[in-house]
Amino acid sequence: MALKLWDLAGAEDDRRFSPYCWRAKLALAHKGLAAETIPWRFTEQDAIAFSGQDKVPVLIDGDKEIHDSWAIACHLEDEYPVNPLFGSPQARSLSFGFKIWVEATLPGPINRAIMPDLFAALHDRDKAYFRASREKRFGRTLEEVGAEPEKAVQELRGALLPVRKQLVEEPFVCGAHPGFADYILFGAFQWARAVSPRRLLEPDDPVFAWRERLLDLYDGLARKARGYPVWA
Amino acid sequence: MALKLWDLAGAEDDRRFSPYCWRAKLALAHKGLAAETIPWRFTEQDAIAFSGQDKVPVLIDGDKEIHDSWAIACHLEDEYPVNPLFGSPQARSLSFGFKIWVEATLPGPINRAIMPDLFAALHDRDKAYFRASREKRFGRTLEEVGAEPEKAVQELRGALLPVRKQLVEEPFVCGAHPGFADYILFGAFQWARAVSPRRLLEPDDPVFAWRERLLDLYDGLARKARGYPVWA
Repeated sequence: MALKLWDLAGAEDDRRFSPYCWRAKLALAHKGLAAETIPWRFTEQDAIAFSGQDKVPVLIDGDKEIHDSWAIACHLEDEYPVNPLFGSPQARSLSFGFKIWVEATLPGPINRAIMPDLFAALHDRDKAYFRASREKRFGRTLEEVGAEPEKAVQELRGALLPVRKQLVEEPFVCGAHPGFADYILFGAFQWARAVSPRRLLEPDDPVFAWRERLLDLYDGLARKARGYPVWA
Repeated sequence: MALKLWDLAGAEDDRRFSPYCWRAKLALAHKGLAAETIPWRFTEQDAIAFSGQDKVPVLIDGDKEIHDSWAIACHLEDEYPVNPLFGSPQARSLSFGFKIWVEATLPGPINRAIMPDLFAALHDRDKAYFRASREKRFGRTLEEVGAEPEKAVQELRGALLPVRKQLVEEPFVCGAHPGFADYILFGAFQWARAVSPRRLLEPDDPVFAWRERLLDLYDGLARKARGYPVWA
């Protein structure tokens, strides 16, 4: 049964930078599932119109269509119980809360830390759409968003305090083994790494060591992906 | 096998205001375990010297001594598997991360929101100790800490955004049923409620409705405790 995933790409077909698509790809790898990934750009909304909405990731699993990275994780967990992403209903709910925390906390400083690089890494045909939609969302120009990247990096490091304290005690957000909450957090870093050489973490940060562990998972799936070294 | 819990009390023996002790009491109730609670004041360090440290909660369970609310929860989960507080190793780790987030995020604004009331609710013999230790910790007087309570309330409400968004979707932090992560969060509110009439949440806040559910648990264990109405 063929799995297909529509996956946001930049200028090159293999520059895959969506944090949400990375969640889905790591969840698939976690389950030992191989999926064909289809490079997709923001302006190719016709290509995923069958999903009834306009965002990736979109997954086709046999005769089912699933969109939204959280829905994809839940689908995989329910259809393929081996190698649990959550392992219990409570862990699923706590992961959902963690997802909300990540989404409320990290995109702001990461956008501000990488914005000129992110824009430069887009496919040319996406640039006008991206600029218009993001400048509307942020209420300022992309150049203004990205004007103080080092300040944004410091803010990001401060915001990571709770996970940093946990990762001193345990190798993964999910404990002894990685789970979907790890992929939720990691997606944010892999988004940045795909488009920007900026150093978000210092090597002595426990979050840095955790990210190394995530980069190594599944035969280096994330590390092999086109992007910048995380320790330049 | 008798369970005994040393539990921080204020001016009156039944004014129990430690957020950490509330976590432990709700975890005991969750497991269906009855424990004798012993009112304890900050200056009664001799009474818990047997634990090798100076903070409550301290639990005696048969011939075992356990201190620290997280250690107590893990002990109860391992010794009394019925009615899981976590339900899986991943949920335990995610709850640990949530605990770190709560402790990094909520005590600051709650202290600033309730400080004059908190000080007034202490037993007289604890007041000098409390003032000296907290003024050292905060680097300013208790009066300065509590000078802008409504600003602190607004900050608290803002900090609750991630749990608020989750509680729109699910009745408890742990999903369909309460678990230890709920008690971790609830302890912070019950601490405030025990000593201060200040309204921390508006009635239309999903966190307010969640707190009502927690107040009702275990035959109203937390609601019956001495404290102020949460909707004045």
